[in-house]
This record gives sequence, structure tokens and C-alpha cells, in this order.
Amino acid sequence: MQSIADVNYAAALLHWDMETYMPEKAAQRKGEQISTLTSLAHKRFSSTKTHDLLKKCRKAKNISDDDMTNIIRTLEDYDKAIKLPAKFVAELSEAGSKAYVSWIEARKQNDFSIFNVPLQKLINLKKKETELTGYKAHPYDALLDTFEPKCTVDFLDKLFLDVRKELVPFVANIRSKPEIDNSFLHKFYPKHKQWEFGMHILKQMGYDFKAGRQDISEHPFTINFGPEDVRVTTRIDENNFANMTWSCIHEGGHALYEQGLPGFEYGLPLGSAASLAIHESQSRLWENMLGRSKDFWVTNYPYLQTIFPENLSDISLDQFYAGINKVQASPIRTESDELHYHFHVMIRYEIEKGIFEESLKLSDLKDYWNANYKDYLGLDIKSDKEGILQDIHWAHGSFGYFPTYSLGSFYAAQFFKKASEVIPTLKNDIKATNYGNLLQWLRSNIHMEGRKYLPNELCRKVTGEDLDFKYFMQYASSKYGDIYK
Amino acid sequence: MQSIADVNYAAALLHWDMETYMPEKAAQRKGEQISTLTSLAHKRFSSTKTHDLLKKCRKAKNISDDDMTNIIRTLEDYDKAIKLPAKFVAELSEAGSKAYVSWIEARKQNDFSIFNVPLQKLINLKKKETELTGYKAHPYDALLDTFEPKCTVDFLDKLFLDVRKELVPFVANIRSKPEIDNSFLHKFYPKHKQWEFGMHILKQMGYDFKAGRQDISEHPFTINFGPEDVRVTTRIDENNFANMTWSCIHEGGHALYEQGLPGFEYGLPLGSAASLAIHESQSRLWENMLGRSKDFWVTNYPYLQTIFPENLSDISLDQFYAGINKVQASPIRTESDELHYHFHVMIRYEIEKGIFEESLKLSDLKDYWNANYKDYLGLDIKSDKEGILQDIHWAHGSFGYFPTYSLGSFYAAQFFKKASEVIPTLKNDIKATNYGNLLQWLRSNIHMEGRKYLPNELCRKVTGEDLDFKYFMQYASSKYGDIYK
Repeated sequence: MQSIADVNYAAALLHWDMETYMPEKAAQRKGEQISTLTSLAHKRFSSTKTHDLLKKCRKAKNISDDDMTNIIRTLEDYDKAIKLPAKFVAELSEAGSKAYVSWIEARKQNDFSIFNVPLQKLINLKKKETELTGYKAHPYDALLDTFEPKCTVDFLDKLFLDVRKELVPFVANIRSKPEIDNSFLHKFYPKHKQWEFGMHILKQMGYDFKAGRQDISEHPFTINFGPEDVRVTTRIDENNFANMTWSCIHEGGHALYEQGLPGFEYGLPLGSAASLAIHESQSRLWENMLGRSKDFWVTNYPYLQTIFPENLSDISLDQFYAGINKVQASPIRTESDELHYHFHVMIRYEIEKGIFEESLKLSDLKDYWNANYKDYLGLDIKSDKEGILQDIHWAHGSFGYFPTYSLGSFYAAQFFKKASEVIPTLKNDIKATNYGNLLQWLRSNIHMEGRKYLPNELCRKVTGEDLDFKYFMQYASSKYGDIYK
Repeated sequence: MQSIADVNYAAALLHWDMETYMPEKAAQRKGEQISTLTSLAHKRFSSTKTHDLLKKCRKAKNISDDDMTNIIRTLEDYDKAIKLPAKFVAELSEAGSKAYVSWIEARKQNDFSIFNVPLQKLINLKKKETELTGYKAHPYDALLDTFEPKCTVDFLDKLFLDVRKELVPFVANIRSKPEIDNSFLHKFYPKHKQWEFGMHILKQMGYDFKAGRQDISEHPFTINFGPEDVRVTTRIDENNFANMTWSCIHEGGHALYEQGLPGFEYGLPLGSAASLAIHESQSRLWENMLGRSKDFWVTNYPYLQTIFPENLSDISLDQFYAGINKVQASPIRTESDELHYHFHVMIRYEIEKGIFEESLKLSDLKDYWNANYKDYLGLDIKSDKEGILQDIHWAHGSFGYFPTYSLGSFYAAQFFKKASEVIPTLKNDIKATNYGNLLQWLRSNIHMEGRKYLPNELCRKVTGEDLDFKYFMQYASSKYGDIYK
């Protein structure tokens, strides 16, 4: 398992290189090298030899509970891995490459119809995948499970029903309030000063620069090659201070999780993150529960003012706090405030569900999209690029991914509530930019557990309850009730 | 072969990362990842399946001459690869790791005796390697061949006899001449300006920055992941302008070779460099025949003066030219001028030969070293660190490597002589910083041939003759006769 991890992490370094320092002519070859490594690792993992060894381990005596968990999880992974024949995986990968090219072209021409044929081909293959993988209640469950173990339509339907019942009217009410002025965020913030501030915040969060580094890339991401080397990237828009800052904190949250995984479980389930949603809970907790709280800025904001006095000296902490939490519907998910965000995800979820239960046809998607954006966000979508073509996920064949974004925020709220209860000093810690107690709590309760528990099991272990949307709603009500009176 | 190359090039990217951007805590894991990739590639290449395929290819009909060369060379590589059992390679690798640690410690304490035991162990293993590999005339031939195909003691003895007969008295004569003042090279040269100048020279040489990049590392090197991604590194000493400049040109020469290899032969012998010595011929040709010529600086020096007027405005081109070619014995090989350099290599060669023919015992090495440095370089070696402990090669088990450095310079002189004959405009081209004709000639005569020919065969093809030391001696006599009257 460790040597398979070595190969996969090597592929990850090639990915990192592609997004950061690679010279342009190297792109195609680097892609082929990654593909060779990935398929080598896959081939080795899904070999009958692996299976024989795992079965032997399964029967071994005098084995620790943790090692047995590693074996069981690995067997589960193995069973998943062999359900898709190599030929099918290659076909999927090729269809994905074609869809990607077509998606780029469709975006360029701002015309969803260009994307139709390769998207339909991909959807057909993903439908086949649901059959190969198998499912109990709903074909979409098979795809959800590849990103979030045991996540189902049944579970998500209930969750998004809560979103619809509670968050939709709450946000509609906010939209009726006077608009907040956050124009100060769009003044000129020089690149090198933003970079320095981002580095300052990462250090403050406890990100270990001896086990990681930050670089610039077009799209911010976190990537790791073992817990001793967890790298983040950011981007800087000199006319938008928010862009770098909260993406930096967000990626920092992901990175703290990876740096906190147990190194002695390298390559094994207990050395890996619990799930995408749990991963996202860590980034969202730091980005939103901390990074967009007033407490976080009690010490940080006066410091920020000294760096950008020309932009911020006449903006009070309260104005700053309101400005960075301005609620305003945007057609673009990645530019959304933290409340509307879940409407973007919900619409995507309903569409993907519709595709795989065959209640929605490809030819209906765009109208469905635009109608729902009107209903939930109050927006008229004027272009495909700002609408149904905005995200890359479908072009990668990643159906079932989006829900993890919302789940992450909801887990974050529930975890943060719990942390506030068990760390009585938390509020003052945050005001003093002292996150050590919080990080320690996250480390011992979440990070160090790796993939020992299923996401919802982990939630129960940490908070005593299943995931419950009410914690996010409490967080939102309290915070935005205050800001928007 | 291409997917094996993918794995080896991925390992190379991990190496590059280690030397440039890797956070410090990642070192051990990265080393393990590299080792996993390297042994995967080795295992795959040396499998019986590879052999069966190669034998089938060997008998195939309607195959082009080039493809047949690929098959024959690969079969040769295969035969070499399987001579050393995996267990022996692992033992060698472990002994190398231990020797490296001991060498570091011995350098720290400036005491060669600390290095003795692990070095002896390594030597014993390398002796065993010569038996496993086999040889005709001399056991050291087996090791020389691993770095330079078909290179033998017989061949090198003759070569270094010429060096002894001609270069030794020539250099001794130079040492009796008045010392050249090159103190202007040791004034303060700010880092960023040196960096810019190095980048300027690399572009001027024709290095393709869309298929490569330069970074900073402790020791300069060139590394590639296919001809579309060939990277160089440099280091900058603000109090030594020579350090960055000629190492930059040197690595640039290596890089132009790699960028010039045929991409369609990726992973195959015809897509690889001919040998280490031929590689070194390219770096030395650019570094010395061009980079230390007066012609090279006719246009470049006035430009350099505009960048560093405070250091160079009162230094004439002739003074600069003499200064950068100052001949002065140094105990350190890597800081040597281009003439004394070959005495360093020759002494190493004689020692290694003595070790493997068992005419020199480990306990005699240091005295032998110091006596020879006195004889050939006129130096009293006052510390092991500046003497026998200076180079890492032995700690890596790389016996047989050093001669390729001298061979590279001698090939370079012979190639450059030929280029001067066939490109009548060459002298004026260089004066005008127009190296296109030269690069084109190197590309079509050397780079594009890959490993089609053995080094000396290539030399015959390019110059019509076997390697002959007289071309280096002609170059040295003409240049240094002029400088030192």
C-alpha cells in the first residue's frame, strides 16, 4: 500500500508541477506521464495478488483494531476498484478528455449546445458505471458514493428539503434589506502586499511551512504527497482583496487537515482523509466560521489597516465585517456568499439526480437551470458561460461531487458548535489570533482519525449526533441576523 | 519503453523538486518515493517479458535501421541490467547510503579515516560488481563502461599519457608567468542583476524557455523529463561573478543537448544522450570554447559593463578576457581553471584504477593523493576536506565517473575545431552573439543522433577521426599562449 501511495503521490507532484512551474511545451508529455503512473498504481492495487494478501490479512490473528480497520477499508476499496474493467475506465477517461476540449470550446463560444454530444456520451458511460458499480435505491447513489461514502439521494433529499424550507426564505428576507457597501474590497491592493498578508495568516493558522509551501496558480488548490509535504496555491487579483484572502484561508484549512493526518499510517486508510465532505468541513470551518467572523478580525483587522491604510483607514471593523459578509446573489458558484452558495449546489444536485433517474433530458437542462436560478437566486441567467457551463466538473465526468461542498459547510457548522462548547476560551482565543486549542481539538478528534469512520459516524463521534442542518441554520441566523438586523 | 521512461522521468521530477522547492520535512519520504519509482522501472525493464519482446523485435522484418538500432541498444542495456541481481543492487544502494552519511560526517570533522570502513565496504561491493558484470582486460573497465560505453583503462592510459607529456609542462610554464589580476570578479555583484544576466545569456544561447526553466539550487544541475521539459539550476555568489556565469553557460550547454534530442524517440536509445562524456562535451564547448573566448565577449562584455559599471567600467575587454582565463592551481576540482582541471581528473583516475587492480590500498590513498597534488599542481593539501574528501562521487559508489569530465573537454575541443572548419562564419557569428549556425550544426550532427553511435564512433562520424588529445592541446596552446605570452 505504501509503494502504491508512492506512485500516486509522485503523480500528484507532476500535477502540482503542471499547475505551478511547468514550461508550456511539456503539458502533453506530463499528462501522459501522470496517466502512466496512475494506471500503474491502479493496476497494482486491483491485482489478484493484492486481493490474496488482503484476504490473508483479514484472517490474521493478533492484529490491532486499527490495522484491522485498515484491512477492511482497503478491501472495500478493492471491491470498488475491480468493479470497473480497465477497458471501461480507459473509455471513460477518453470520453472525459473529449468532453473537456468540447467544454472549453463551448465556453469560448458561450454555447451549451456545443457541449451536448460529448456530455451525452459521458452521461451514458456514467449510467453504465452505475450499473457496473451497483446501487440499492437510486442509480445516482452509485456516483455519490464514489465521492462521499454511503451518501445517498434519500439522505440528500431530506437535507436539501431543510435548505429549501429554512434557508430559502431566510436569504430572500436578507435580499429585501438595504445593500451593504463593500466597495473598499475592490480598491487597489498590490500583489506583493497581499502575498505577504496571506503568508502571515497561513502561519497564524498553524500551517507548517517546513512541511509545505505556497505558490501561485490559476486556480487555488491544496495537494499533498504525504503529511510531511502539503502544498497550497493561491491567486491574487489586485482589484479584489477578497479573492486571495479567503481562498488562502480555505486552502489553509484543507492543508491543516492533511498535515494532521498520522504519518505512520502513510498510504493506508487511517492515514487518509475521511471523505471529501469532511475535507471541505475543515476548509469551510477556517474560511467561514473563523475567517468571516468578527472575532477573527479583532486583532487581524487593525494589522490589515496598517498594511493598506490608503484603502482601509476610514473603514471601521464593523463596516469591514459587514462588507466581507455581504449577501448578494451571484450567477457564479465560486463567487457566491456562504448562504446563496447552497442554492447553487442544490440546483446542481437536482439536475444530476434528474439525469440519472431519467426525469431530466439533456435538452431540458439549460431551461431547468435558468428557471431555478430565477426561483432561488432571483437571477436572470444571461449567458451559458455564467450559467450551466460555469463549472468544469461535468467535463471531468464528476457527477455526484457537488453535494460534498454543501455537506462540508454543514459539517463545519456542527463541528464548530461542538468546539465552542468544549473549548470555553475559544471566542477569546480567536480574538487573540490564538488557534492552538482549536487546531489541537480538530487534530485529535478529526485529523488523527484518518478514514477510521464513515463521515456520518465521525460526525456522531465528534458531536454526539448525526449531521443536522439546524447547526448551519443556527450559525447563519445568528450571524446574518446580527449583520442585517 | 515509453512507460518505463514515464516512471523514470517522474522520479527525476521528484529529484528536481528535492533540490529546488521541497519543504524540509519531506526529504525522507521523497527519497523513498524516488526509490519506489526507480525500482519499479528497473523491475519492469529487467523482466523476462521485456526480454521476450526484445528478442521478437530483433527477428522482426521490415523494420527501419533506426528502430533496429533501438532494439539492439536496448538489448545491450537489458543484458547489462540483468547481470546485477536485485539483492546485490539493494545491498549496493544501502552501502551507498551509509557511505554518504559517513562522508558527510568525515567532511564535518575533516578526517578521511572516518570514511574508511564504509568506503572499504563499498569498494568490496564494487569489486564484486566487476566480477558480476565481467570484463576483458582490467576490472576497472567494467566500472568505466557503466558511465562511458566501451571506455577502457587501455584507452585512458594512452590519453592521460598525452596529458602528462604535453599539458603538464605547458601548465607548469604558465605557473612561472606573472599572476593575472582578476580581483574585479570578486567585487559585489547583486543577486538579481546576476540572475537577469544569466537568463539573458541562456536566451542568447538558444535555450528554449518554453521547454525549460531555470531555478536556484545549492549545486547547479541540468535535469530533463523528455526533450520538452529540460530544466537548469544555478547558484549565485554575490562576491564571485564567475560562479553563476560559467555554471549557467555550462548547464545551458547540457540543456541544449537534451532539448535537441528527437522527441519522437522518447524513452528509446535514439532519444537519449550518447554518453556522459558526449554530454560533457556539449557543456564544456559552450562554457569554455565559447564562454571563455574573447569572441564571445566582444558584444557581451560592453553590455555586461552597462549592468555593472561600478565594477567593470575601468576594466578593458582584454583585462576581462585574461581575468576569466586566469590559470592558478586550486585544491578543489570544481573551482579549477580549465587546464589544471585535467590533473584533478587524472589523479582520481590513477587512484581508482589502483584500487581496482589492487595496487593501491585504502590506507595509502590519502598519501598518494597529497603527493600527486604536490607533483602535478604544486599544492600542499592541508586538509582532507580540500583534498581526498572533496567530491561526493565515491560516497555514491560512482567509481569510473571522473574520466568522463576530461573526455568531455577533449571531445569538445575536437568538435569545436570541426565546427570552425565547416562554419566559415563561426568566429564572426560568435562575436555577434549569433549562435544559430553552431547550434544547428550540433543539433544535426550530435543531438539528433541520440545514442545511435558509441561515443568514439560518433566522434569519427562528426570529425572523421578518433578522439585525439591534440585538439585540446592545440586549443590550449593557442589560447593560453596568447594570454600568457
